[in-house]
Amino acid sequence: MRKRVLSGMRPTGRLHLGHYFGALHNWINFQHDYECYYMSADWHALTTNYVNTSEIDKNTLEMIADWIAVGIDPQKSTLFKQSKILQHSELFLILSMITPLRWLQRCSTYKKQINEDRNENLNGYGFLGYPVLQAADILLYKAHIIPVGKDQLSHLEFTREIMRRFNNFYGKIFVIEPKEALTKIARVPGLDGRKMSKSYNNSILLGENNDILKNKVKSMFTDPLKIRKNTPGHPENCVVFGFYKILDFKCSKKRSEECKIGMIGCVVCKSELVEILTEFMAPLTNERKKLISDKAYLDEILKKGCQKATEIASETMKEIHEALKF
Amino acid sequence: MRKRVLSGMRPTGRLHLGHYFGALHNWINFQHDYECYYMSADWHALTTNYVNTSEIDKNTLEMIADWIAVGIDPQKSTLFKQSKILQHSELFLILSMITPLRWLQRCSTYKKQINEDRNENLNGYGFLGYPVLQAADILLYKAHIIPVGKDQLSHLEFTREIMRRFNNFYGKIFVIEPKEALTKIARVPGLDGRKMSKSYNNSILLGENNDILKNKVKSMFTDPLKIRKNTPGHPENCVVFGFYKILDFKCSKKRSEECKIGMIGCVVCKSELVEILTEFMAPLTNERKKLISDKAYLDEILKKGCQKATEIASETMKEIHEALKF
Repeated sequence: MRKRVLSGMRPTGRLHLGHYFGALHNWINFQHDYECYYMSADWHALTTNYVNTSEIDKNTLEMIADWIAVGIDPQKSTLFKQSKILQHSELFLILSMITPLRWLQRCSTYKKQINEDRNENLNGYGFLGYPVLQAADILLYKAHIIPVGKDQLSHLEFTREIMRRFNNFYGKIFVIEPKEALTKIARVPGLDGRKMSKSYNNSILLGENNDILKNKVKSMFTDPLKIRKNTPGHPENCVVFGFYKILDFKCSKKRSEECKIGMIGCVVCKSELVEILTEFMAPLTNERKKLISDKAYLDEILKKGCQKATEIASETMKEIHEALKF
Repeated sequence: MRKRVLSGMRPTGRLHLGHYFGALHNWINFQHDYECYYMSADWHALTTNYVNTSEIDKNTLEMIADWIAVGIDPQKSTLFKQSKILQHSELFLILSMITPLRWLQRCSTYKKQINEDRNENLNGYGFLGYPVLQAADILLYKAHIIPVGKDQLSHLEFTREIMRRFNNFYGKIFVIEPKEALTKIARVPGLDGRKMSKSYNNSILLGENNDILKNKVKSMFTDPLKIRKNTPGHPENCVVFGFYKILDFKCSKKRSEECKIGMIGCVVCKSELVEILTEFMAPLTNERKKLISDKAYLDEILKKGCQKATEIASETMKEIHEALKF
């Protein structure tokens, strides 16, 4: 039996290049060797914004379209909506009971976000229990591999701990310890040099319109010391160069040299990046458009995916009920 | 349409007279005028003991037998198991998201129990969320009347608050504000004079064996100043008199006078209580025995009850999904 991969994204808005290079690129590769489950984590979307839920369903459809457009194959991978599989909430409830409160209170990502983020929605009991819901997601499918960012490593450690605790109380139901798969590209820079993120408003969207794309590249931060073409530049301080590194690794070394010795200026460098990005975007923009206009097709994929996910989740819950003697 | 009553008991062990006079007596009466839903709150049982779950299912069957034996009519009332209705966990998850953590942390019953009870199982994230699960139970059935003890009033207030919060965010889905129905008998004394409670080991069980019943009554605390029959007694300090008051209110006044003027002694008083209690217990003990030996019948009642409960719960969840636009 092939090993299972589980991952998900929160349907909180349009996807951008950060999602592509930080996650989807990996997801696509996993399809060759693993049984992949990719979910729209719509319950998780509520942890950070429960007041306005009206866009979640629309976002899910667009997100699935993006996934397929970049190369996630619905024939190979199971794409589903978390909220449609009631077993996620059932296992969340069970794990809630056995999770010591202090495990959650001392969770570093929780403390960090509560302290740094002024979002009123983070005050929720559910947000504190985020790692519990994530553990339920993973354990329900007995996944082997979890593609995550570094900031999620503590959550995965939590999943392993709660799994051992469960086994300790009720018998060894879970034998697979889920392992992280980190992405090679740890950080995609945004237009301003910070990490690309919706909340920083510094993203290039998947399927971005050509004119907007051009303007966004134009607005990218470059090395402030490189004033003219022949001024020696410092590529390591330049967002444009950051993109060259990600998009075209070999060529980027040459480009770095040219910049340093003043052989190329920022205007040309940017307009070439526009070309590379436009070429990269073209097929996915077309595919994306086609998919979004065919809502019935996307609905059908999700329906099938949810059926398959329900089957697996039900099997696991049956074992759990037996273990609990419920 | 008849108004709905919802209540439940945790299947944590045999029921006793405290359950009967403190709750079941009321439950029976509600059947005349209300649509009643009585559930085995098996998820709630995990909040205070998640380590050992092996008895919960057996306890549920015995509890249902007790309910029917004392007069809960499964033709009139819907008897069901909370854990079989997945919607309880689903609504728990949704309400978890919108519940401010501080509402739970400042809950007086929570603080009291955490401070007083040395039970390690109370350390759980789920125990902190007890009122959230209770709110889900109540709102799922849009219940009008909730029979509760005084100690649960703050939880019911929590339910109303979370309901208003939900309506405020997502539209007025819940129009019925659930109201408490307190029992007339606020407190059934245990053998030692403290509140009758399993954890104090001072209970008289429903269906108690006659010999054990006799011995338990013999061991009841009486007025320590009444040394002989003709010593004037203080019924207000006597557990036996406490039972007279509950079981036979009219006769108890006469009995109180006789005790005060030294006309009756504790031995006679106790042996008469044994008679009253034996008479009270006889039919329910028989009925209980018959029911417990017919597991198929009890299973069938629960099955039907769960079907009906699922129907109502699904209707409510449909409205909730529409409100959330999920």
